[in-house]
Amino acid sequence: MPRQTQIGLMSHAELVSEYETQKADYAKLKTEKLTLDLTRGKPSPEQLDLSADLLVLPGEGDYRDASGTDCRNYGGLQGLPELRAIFGELLGIPVENLFAGNNSSLEMMHDMLVFAMLYGTADSAAPWAGQQVKFLCPVPGYDRHFAITEALGVEMIPVPMEHDGPDAHAIAALVAADPAIKGLWAVPNYSNPTGVVFSEEVVRELVSMPTAAPDFRLFWDNAYAVHPLTDLAAPIVDVLGLAAAAGNPNRPFVFASTSKITYAGAGVAFFGASTANLQWYTRHVSKKSIGPDKINQLRHVRFFKDAAGVRAHMQRHRAILEPKFALVLRILEERLGPSKVASWTEPKGGYFISLDVPEGTAKRVIALAKDAGIALTPAGSTFPYGKDVEDKNIRIAPSFPPLSELEVAMNGLATCVLLAASEHLLDK
Amino acid sequence: MPRQTQIGLMSHAELVSEYETQKADYAKLKTEKLTLDLTRGKPSPEQLDLSADLLVLPGEGDYRDASGTDCRNYGGLQGLPELRAIFGELLGIPVENLFAGNNSSLEMMHDMLVFAMLYGTADSAAPWAGQQVKFLCPVPGYDRHFAITEALGVEMIPVPMEHDGPDAHAIAALVAADPAIKGLWAVPNYSNPTGVVFSEEVVRELVSMPTAAPDFRLFWDNAYAVHPLTDLAAPIVDVLGLAAAAGNPNRPFVFASTSKITYAGAGVAFFGASTANLQWYTRHVSKKSIGPDKINQLRHVRFFKDAAGVRAHMQRHRAILEPKFALVLRILEERLGPSKVASWTEPKGGYFISLDVPEGTAKRVIALAKDAGIALTPAGSTFPYGKDVEDKNIRIAPSFPPLSELEVAMNGLATCVLLAASEHLLDK
Repeated sequence: MPRQTQIGLMSHAELVSEYETQKADYAKLKTEKLTLDLTRGKPSPEQLDLSADLLVLPGEGDYRDASGTDCRNYGGLQGLPELRAIFGELLGIPVENLFAGNNSSLEMMHDMLVFAMLYGTADSAAPWAGQQVKFLCPVPGYDRHFAITEALGVEMIPVPMEHDGPDAHAIAALVAADPAIKGLWAVPNYSNPTGVVFSEEVVRELVSMPTAAPDFRLFWDNAYAVHPLTDLAAPIVDVLGLAAAAGNPNRPFVFASTSKITYAGAGVAFFGASTANLQWYTRHVSKKSIGPDKINQLRHVRFFKDAAGVRAHMQRHRAILEPKFALVLRILEERLGPSKVASWTEPKGGYFISLDVPEGTAKRVIALAKDAGIALTPAGSTFPYGKDVEDKNIRIAPSFPPLSELEVAMNGLATCVLLAASEHLLDK
Repeated sequence: MPRQTQIGLMSHAELVSEYETQKADYAKLKTEKLTLDLTRGKPSPEQLDLSADLLVLPGEGDYRDASGTDCRNYGGLQGLPELRAIFGELLGIPVENLFAGNNSSLEMMHDMLVFAMLYGTADSAAPWAGQQVKFLCPVPGYDRHFAITEALGVEMIPVPMEHDGPDAHAIAALVAADPAIKGLWAVPNYSNPTGVVFSEEVVRELVSMPTAAPDFRLFWDNAYAVHPLTDLAAPIVDVLGLAAAAGNPNRPFVFASTSKITYAGAGVAFFGASTANLQWYTRHVSKKSIGPDKINQLRHVRFFKDAAGVRAHMQRHRAILEPKFALVLRILEERLGPSKVASWTEPKGGYFISLDVPEGTAKRVIALAKDAGIALTPAGSTFPYGKDVEDKNIRIAPSFPPLSELEVAMNGLATCVLLAASEHLLDK
């Protein structure tokens, strides 16, 4: 079969034959009239079922936390101490430095940026609005991060993602020179979409590098902190402690949530930071809300009991997710390995596999897949402004579909990749 | 007893005697070492108990809405259609014009203002930030409204509250003349703290008056829409319909919540507006969140079943609240009526009684009460910038304390009012 040969080494005749084969495969694929979805990192119904008890918790007559607070009423802006203790332990953040909020850590990130725009940060001489503000964006990265900074008119500068985190030397050079660079988007553990885990060395560089902006912030979205897919969980690097030790205690804004632990739509989000940052946040967020949904927080406390409860729960997620990731990797290897037409990440945790197809073909692959009923995240969406200048990155989200659908979708995607690659080489 | 006479008509000798009596009463009050709280409009534990079923809802295996949506997962930015239908009926807002959010309508109001500041509204030529922006504030009003506009640097202009709503003629003259006036804070039903219900005539004037600013907005906080304390509930004036009919469909931003229906900390908030406003809101809020807590919304659907369920539930609240309001009014009448030393509102719904004491004594009354262990909302807090220039308004929140404590607190407060009044007249 032609796909046993590296496409780049094929003769013209072999290429034409490869193209015809893939075209036929693709035509067959279209007759199947699929409606499959690999777009978003959504937990599957089986994963959501793991938290079924939340539907009847906290339980009859149970509405007080350990301190006696009536969780049904107003107040408690920082969130339930017991829940903060559980996630503080997991995230390596002292309970007094952690906020527990409503159901969206994205909302907290948005808040931080909005407050910085309107009021400036704890270290700003003036509000960010009205100034030129730039953010560094490791690529490929998370589209919803980029959407926030784009909406606020923040100029986004892509920086390359390496195997152990973003290119810290390149970043250090940029932030030292340009006071307009006020932030960096980061997903330190099992990055979206590459699965990269930031090394402690990279984290040390990011928290200690001199920055021309006194109010530079690391937007540290630890969305996959407790989401390993192997026995060896990536460690949680103590970014707040390292930043404080480096003399930059206010640099990290740490975010996390239970969106991919309990319910994607009905979980609890967290924000961790220095005392000065929390005072700043409290001052502004107290204008916006009298407090988060403490009953939902109590529900989570009753459900998990302690940090060990969360870890055990995540092993149950892993049991569902690991076969899906293995399936995707197996099909990629079988279908795209021999032809050397693509490369992909092999994440040890998180929610995504990042697939690089031949330069100039990602858009075409995604369009072909769409016409065959396989939905993928739009081309370029892992880059600021949706611009993948090399047009090669595709984010694969294996979590939601059942294994049987995932297999069909991945084989279909592989056909699209091979067809687009041969088209491209034949200049069709 | 001296207090049987109007204080203003007393001779100096009578006044001295009155002062000595009140001073003795107050000294006795202090020996009781009270810790009572009339500060905030919080539901009492008995009221929260009315929604006890929420602690075990939606129930085992129950996580899909009528359309089959899995409420546990991401998505559904506008909120559950079934819950929007229930509250749409109650608020007189078409279901497609209503958003259901998380637990705080204050957060939605804050969002609208922040989005207007950063991006401008659907009718703005430019973001509000960087322009001079003014808001009209009917007084006395709600301190948390004023806190949002103050934080954002919006200049607040007090306008008088009449018996049927804010002074619409004064407002019409102001907004016609000054394009910097971009908004009005309003609580149309059972206003905080006066209990005033806006008449349909006032609402018609507010939605139809010409405004120099093309992007003028009514921040219409219908927090007490379904909160009557009598058999005759105040009607919900169709502010969106009237505004559309007047050619100003985008003028009202309508807010409501279940904070004082189910749980103050774990309810559902609503936002209703024109289609253009909702498109504008969606564009911005979609950067901030992937959707509200739909499980909590489903929980509320299961709990209420329909709009009649909400109305029946509110009658159970009324049964708890009505005796508290009656007690406060009785004590005010008994203790302060004969001396004509004060006036107060007699609300037909809502959460507050507004008490006016002699000019120049509100601060003193609140300080005296505080020293006697009775906490009241800080003086001036019902006015923009906390400035009650006449120093006379005190907000009483009768909902939270049990009747026995409320009686003690109100008698204590009456003593403080009488003592401060006689001090004031004697120039002490």
